Amino acid sequence: MDSELTPQDFIVPTLGPATFRSPLGLSTVQGDGLGDFVPHGARVLYQIETEPGRTLCTDLMMERAGPREKIFFEPSQCKAAIVTCGGLCPGLNNVIRSIFLQLHHRYGVPTVLGIRYGYQGLNPAKGPPPLLLTPEYVERIHNQGGTVLRSSRGPEDPAMIVDYLRSESINLLFCVGGDGTQRGTHAIAMEAHRRRAAIAVVGIPKTIDNDLPFVWRSFGHGTALEKAREAINCAHTEARGALNGIGLVQLMGRNAGFIAAGAALASQEANFVLIPEVRFPLEGPGGFLDALRKRIEARQHAVIVVAEGAGQHLFASESSECDASGNRKLQDIGVLLRDKISHYFKAAGIAINMKYIDPSYIIRSVPANSDDALLCDAMARHAVHAAMTGKTDMLIGLEHGQFLHIPISTAVAQKKHLSPESEFWLRVIESTGQPTWV
Amino acid sequence: MDSELTPQDFIVPTLGPATFRSPLGLSTVQGDGLGDFVPHGARVLYQIETEPGRTLCTDLMMERAGPREKIFFEPSQCKAAIVTCGGLCPGLNNVIRSIFLQLHHRYGVPTVLGIRYGYQGLNPAKGPPPLLLTPEYVERIHNQGGTVLRSSRGPEDPAMIVDYLRSESINLLFCVGGDGTQRGTHAIAMEAHRRRAAIAVVGIPKTIDNDLPFVWRSFGHGTALEKAREAINCAHTEARGALNGIGLVQLMGRNAGFIAAGAALASQEANFVLIPEVRFPLEGPGGFLDALRKRIEARQHAVIVVAEGAGQHLFASESSECDASGNRKLQDIGVLLRDKISHYFKAAGIAINMKYIDPSYIIRSVPANSDDALLCDAMARHAVHAAMTGKTDMLIGLEHGQFLHIPISTAVAQKKHLSPESEFWLRVIESTGQPTWV
Amino acid sequence: MDSELTPQDFIVPTLGPATFRSPLGLSTVQGDGLGDFVPHGARVLYQIETEPGRTLCTDLMMERAGPREKIFFEPSQCKAAIVTCGGLCPGLNNVIRSIFLQLHHRYGVPTVLGIRYGYQGLNPAKGPPPLLLTPEYVERIHNQGGTVLRSSRGPEDPAMIVDYLRSESINLLFCVGGDGTQRGTHAIAMEAHRRRAAIAVVGIPKTIDNDLPFVWRSFGHGTALEKAREAINCAHTEARGALNGIGLVQLMGRNAGFIAAGAALASQEANFVLIPEVRFPLEGPGGFLDALRKRIEARQHAVIVVAEGAGQHLFASESSECDASGNRKLQDIGVLLRDKISHYFKAAGIAINMKYIDPSYIIRSVPANSDDALLCDAMARHAVHAAMTGKTDMLIGLEHGQFLHIPISTAVAQKKHLSPESEFWLRVIESTGQPTWV
Amino acid sequence: MDSELTPQDFIVPTLGPATFRSPLGLSTVQGDGLGDFVPHGARVLYQIETEPGRTLCTDLMMERAGPREKIFFEPSQCKAAIVTCGGLCPGLNNVIRSIFLQLHHRYGVPTVLGIRYGYQGLNPAKGPPPLLLTPEYVERIHNQGGTVLRSSRGPEDPAMIVDYLRSESINLLFCVGGDGTQRGTHAIAMEAHRRRAAIAVVGIPKTIDNDLPFVWRSFGHGTALEKAREAINCAHTEARGALNGIGLVQLMGRNAGFIAAGAALASQEANFVLIPEVRFPLEGPGGFLDALRKRIEARQHAVIVVAEGAGQHLFASESSECDASGNRKLQDIGVLLRDKISHYFKAAGIAINMKYIDPSYIIRSVPANSDDALLCDAMARHAVHAAMTGKTDMLIGLEHGQFLHIPISTAVAQKKHLSPESEFWLRVIESTGQPTWV
Repeated sequence: MDSELTPQDFIVPTLGPATFRSPLGLSTVQGDGLGDFVPHGARVLYQIETEPGRTLCTDLMMERAGPREKIFFEPSQCKAAIVTCGGLCPGLNNVIRSIFLQLHHRYGVPTVLGIRYGYQGLNPAKGPPPLLLTPEYVERIHNQGGTVLRSSRGPEDPAMIVDYLRSESINLLFCVGGDGTQRGTHAIAMEAHRRRAAIAVVGIPKTIDNDLPFVWRSFGHGTALEKAREAINCAHTEARGALNGIGLVQLMGRNAGFIAAGAALASQEANFVLIPEVRFPLEGPGGFLDALRKRIEARQHAVIVVAEGAGQHLFASESSECDASGNRKLQDIGVLLRDKISHYFKAAGIAINMKYIDPSYIIRSVPANSDDALLCDAMARHAVHAAMTGKTDMLIGLEHGQFLHIPISTAVAQKKHLSPESEFWLRVIESTGQPTWV
Repeated sequence: MDSELTPQDFIVPTLGPATFRSPLGLSTVQGDGLGDFVPHGARVLYQIETEPGRTLCTDLMMERAGPREKIFFEPSQCKAAIVTCGGLCPGLNNVIRSIFLQLHHRYGVPTVLGIRYGYQGLNPAKGPPPLLLTPEYVERIHNQGGTVLRSSRGPEDPAMIVDYLRSESINLLFCVGGDGTQRGTHAIAMEAHRRRAAIAVVGIPKTIDNDLPFVWRSFGHGTALEKAREAINCAHTEARGALNGIGLVQLMGRNAGFIAAGAALASQEANFVLIPEVRFPLEGPGGFLDALRKRIEARQHAVIVVAEGAGQHLFASESSECDASGNRKLQDIGVLLRDKISHYFKAAGIAINMKYIDPSYIIRSVPANSDDALLCDAMARHAVHAAMTGKTDMLIGLEHGQFLHIPISTAVAQKKHLSPESEFWLRVIESTGQPTWV
Repeated sequence: MDSELTPQDFIVPTLGPATFRSPLGLSTVQGDGLGDFVPHGARVLYQIETEPGRTLCTDLMMERAGPREKIFFEPSQCKAAIVTCGGLCPGLNNVIRSIFLQLHHRYGVPTVLGIRYGYQGLNPAKGPPPLLLTPEYVERIHNQGGTVLRSSRGPEDPAMIVDYLRSESINLLFCVGGDGTQRGTHAIAMEAHRRRAAIAVVGIPKTIDNDLPFVWRSFGHGTALEKAREAINCAHTEARGALNGIGLVQLMGRNAGFIAAGAALASQEANFVLIPEVRFPLEGPGGFLDALRKRIEARQHAVIVVAEGAGQHLFASESSECDASGNRKLQDIGVLLRDKISHYFKAAGIAINMKYIDPSYIIRSVPANSDDALLCDAMARHAVHAAMTGKTDMLIGLEHGQFLHIPISTAVAQKKHLSPESEFWLRVIESTGQPTWV
Repeated sequence: MDSELTPQDFIVPTLGPATFRSPLGLSTVQGDGLGDFVPHGARVLYQIETEPGRTLCTDLMMERAGPREKIFFEPSQCKAAIVTCGGLCPGLNNVIRSIFLQLHHRYGVPTVLGIRYGYQGLNPAKGPPPLLLTPEYVERIHNQGGTVLRSSRGPEDPAMIVDYLRSESINLLFCVGGDGTQRGTHAIAMEAHRRRAAIAVVGIPKTIDNDLPFVWRSFGHGTALEKAREAINCAHTEARGALNGIGLVQLMGRNAGFIAAGAALASQEANFVLIPEVRFPLEGPGGFLDALRKRIEARQHAVIVVAEGAGQHLFASESSECDASGNRKLQDIGVLLRDKISHYFKAAGIAINMKYIDPSYIIRSVPANSDDALLCDAMARHAVHAAMTGKTDMLIGLEHGQFLHIPISTAVAQKKHLSPESEFWLRVIESTGQPTWV
């Protein structure tokens, strides 16, 4: 994905010079045992791998996240708002809570609002008024799945949103959401910029599929793997419980197979993993059905894990419908496979026992596990540091173990995919023993 | 359900007089601090409630389960077989394990076979040969869901089964399964009786729906409640996460609503529980859709829990198809409700966000929780005591906190239902606030 | 435990004739498909087992719980208070919530207070003022462990408590607690009776150890079994992970071994279960250490589960100290065993790897599982029905699958123990293979 | 930790030129959609951060792990052995299983042995003979905690081990263990090198504390965080359940506070986190007890999380004892704190309710969660690739999201610590609100 990136792509927009002293009271000296401000200009290399005959590119550098000694906003003059958009994802409430606590306790921002029902809540014609967040309100929300602010899909007019923000004197806006949401966030930031409104607009990337570039691991993904693994284990138990048992599990993954591949590999019980990135032949020798039959004949049971975005080429015509978030509507590969498998084995005269499991809503609505809780807390607090410093039109990234400031326009210019050439996918192949389809 | 029962219905068939001394070495004296044999003729009252103006019936007495001082079989002459039939249920492996351990360690039965693929495994023309169970084989199986013996649906010819049992010298047969399985068990016992074959045929009732009479609580049901509650909680989180969010959860329960009602009450998050025992009007004033609309208008979210056997009257014509177990095929109430709700709100001009969840396979394939593990262990060991004593054509029951011997013909003569007049259903009504449909 | 009971022991005190019509609007006719009031005088047999040569005693009858057609209190004149006492137990918040919801939504009681810090909160000199409970406050508390009202140990002066109740016009008092708490509840009810104060004082039994008579299964116990089983499984893993590994788990159970025995049997991994009811020899041939050595020599690992009240006879002198709840302080059997085992094997020249686990606080502070949630809801709603009917000085019991009204004086007159002669303990012996110590 | 590293420190020892063609059949071309061999010489930058005025050091490069096109061993001539050493850690069985499966199915190594009881099993005088691993044996072990090979502490004589390896013709040795184990691994590799024995000795780092350098995240640590968080949540529930409730949780962490800090931050319920890296004053103004008192007075409850290695300076004299692994025996800070807190509040006349929880064995003996299962699988398969390629005296590292080959001598030359100046620790401070002790 690096081919077209230039150093300019990593320049993070700012609202202006940071002139106020941060109230955090950290140290600027390393080695004194005290927590440190991140120096202005701290960067992390984008490309870190090399091999003989290949020059290491050290031009592409990403901006490190973290608290700065000088900040743009005077905290007592700030009013913040948090909005959560799109589908549920484990950890949303953790993010809301940590943004609030960081603003409230650490920077002393007097007012933090919770916008309700996603971007609709920034449209006074549609949404209910925002909630005023308090320490009591957020006290226990991190143990709940879902989002206490509720969510919705789809954008609202950026001009109207900036009108609203100005009318309410909101100068810090935190948008938690995926690809589509971040495009909306970018539009709001651009509109604010056009009007020279000093509003810091900062994104926290939310993608349960883990398919955002510059976000090595997004919050909620690990929890999703855990729940998806449980579903695969159940499918395995069902498959082994009957003669020629087949467990078929459909998992999330519109464009990227990280959940399907990760959960399958974690469970070690899948025999086939089908993902959007690998186009597989369904019929004919060497095709999926043929391979499935061989597995059934050899072992009398099989487990198949399919990402919802896999196999779209198998449908006669591609769907052109979109949902409210602007995502192309996928055709139902799980149901297609279920039907094709049934017909295939019936035609072959082999009685099978198939169980089809679609656990999506059960996966995404649970509370965050510990690692995701840590990610949420870090992303949230880094977003606050960034906004207070006057960074805008950016989201919090995570690469090479480092939290980063990534311009939204750069982050949304591409999708992250599970490369079929990666070691990760190799392990999936090795664990399942499935054919290598190219 | 007591109207037609007579004392004869509780007489447990036996293979003949018990003349061997049990190897268990228990005490026959109460108060010496040692475990006791259950005396011959120990009984438990069937009816235990009364009220003014009603005579307590003390004629109906059920036989207590438990180890007997004198047994019918000489253990060293025994060969046992265990078969698991029908759909998966948490605890099957616990039952297999405890039957084996009790036979092997306590009674010293030299050979215990695990029949594979349900009754098919008792048909030498169909099934693979049985497994020889060993302490090593069963050591860890109780921590796994499913059944290591695998299962299948449907009966096999009793004559052929008895032929097989005799040819293999099997004189103890343990059948773990539901209603249909127990009818098959009864047929095997009758056939053995007709031929004067001294084969003890003992059933262990398996019904995740908890709908067998004389079995106050069947193993696996509590685990199912736990997993079903998790699904309802997810539906609740989804419903609260969006404007006019509706979470619709379909749960098991062909003839009885115990899982739907129990899980809904345990979660305290359901607003409507629909069960087979309560015929509800769908449309019109006072109907389900009308009540749902009121709920949505008042609170902007709703959770609906529906048992798969509910609302069958809403389909134009009843299904006449049956599955391999002889169960009438149900029509899909979950999908019907989903479609009806969508159309209703669309017609009413109210945008909703509905999430439909069907977690059935995830519920039934997990390992047993602690209470179910205890039930399994008790049912299994009691089944062994019963068979060794020469009891046959019976299953292990549980009423009033006591394990019992119940003739299979009596147990399968009726179904257990969740009475709409019970305190349990009253609590569901009180917890959900749903209308009382009669 | 039945030897000394008389029919008088089951007569439940009442405040006077129930003359108001219940607002619940239930049916009095069976068979109309509507939930029913429980008729006045409905009873459940106490003794239900018999055997040849033994006469069934039908004199002892317990009062059934449930909603009555006529109630003592006019709901609009009621003010209720709930207090939770003693140690934490899974389900306390469920009980609080269901009492509140039943009073508020079903009976229309206008004010329900949450007393804080146990009985101390009924002493205006000590406790903080009570909370006013609302639907919003209780909405999610059932998913939390612990008690939102907080707790404390020890009694307060009944005269002062009745003064306080009268000064606050509280006429419905719900006391959730164990043995000691219920004695306090009884004292309050007696004091109110002495003063002819029409205050219904109703107990909800709380005993994680499940050691209250007339309460076949107390809430929280099943959840405790689940968590205790996890600890035993960990001990088993540790024991198997090292040469001569010994896992020693101390569990709750001051006077009764139900948690230790139940969790051990559910896990099937324990080799020794030591409970208060079975006095075991520590040293010498046939003693515990000798048996442990044989196990280690045969299998190279062992798991021991000990209830905290076991083996008190092994200490030189009995403790005479008591805690604030009036419970005799136990001496630390877990530590004693750990030390004795170490010395024994050191003396024998056998290197062992012992891991000692005491998970008590982790077991009792988790949220209730589904079955316990159901128990809590039922106990709570039955307590409200009882209080509204004018029943007092009683607690909710559960025997033979029926919820009951039991006079507190009868309930606290004895303790429930795990009989070493019971089938339950027999199964523990059979599962562990441990010696039968008498 | 980079100050003293030189490029030489990253040179990975090899047994000799890799001349055999790998049987894996991967691609050497990027972009063909097929999984790729990792090119000889592929490297990852060690230092990737920079800031103005600081030169990026590009000299230090670490070797990438992964399958190579040419390998050193002819697989059919290989015999492998796996040994697990030291304390339990979630994921050990996953590592064993994936090493076996990769050797067996992918490289076709005919014999893989499981060495029992750690290094003792490599001493024929002590250990039992190794297990012959098979697909059946490992089939389900990844769902179990602990290690099926069992473990032990402490080294054995490297000369004797190499004798044994040669006598058994073992030429691939995989050592799973921590710091001490890896020192032993290094000694074995050195001894083999000295004798010119072509034995590949490869380490898989195991440290539940996550305190090995060059291993950004070690397997089992995430699972440990999850279980430790549960214990902290229980402590919080206990603390909130009583007046002046104090929950004190001791967690693992001999030299590094990652578990204590991570679990506390994930739970968001801790008020104090005490770790080995931060020396805190106990008494006096500004000390821990003083701060705790302020917290109790303000909020009436507090949660303290302490790593076992914290506060060793508070003991009169340092312990000089060591355990069998060569770790210095720590003095019991949890008990010290418990006693000091009790005395302090008693002296201050403030009644407290303290609950002390030590969940260590419950944390480390559970099965691996999904993310740890993925780590285990990756580490194991990379270890196999490395060994087959002839790499030796190295362990699998993980930095900047990349799996690496790290010379053991470099890896064990230092410890990884939680820097009090890091953003991670800053978040702990921000979340707890505890004082910044330097």
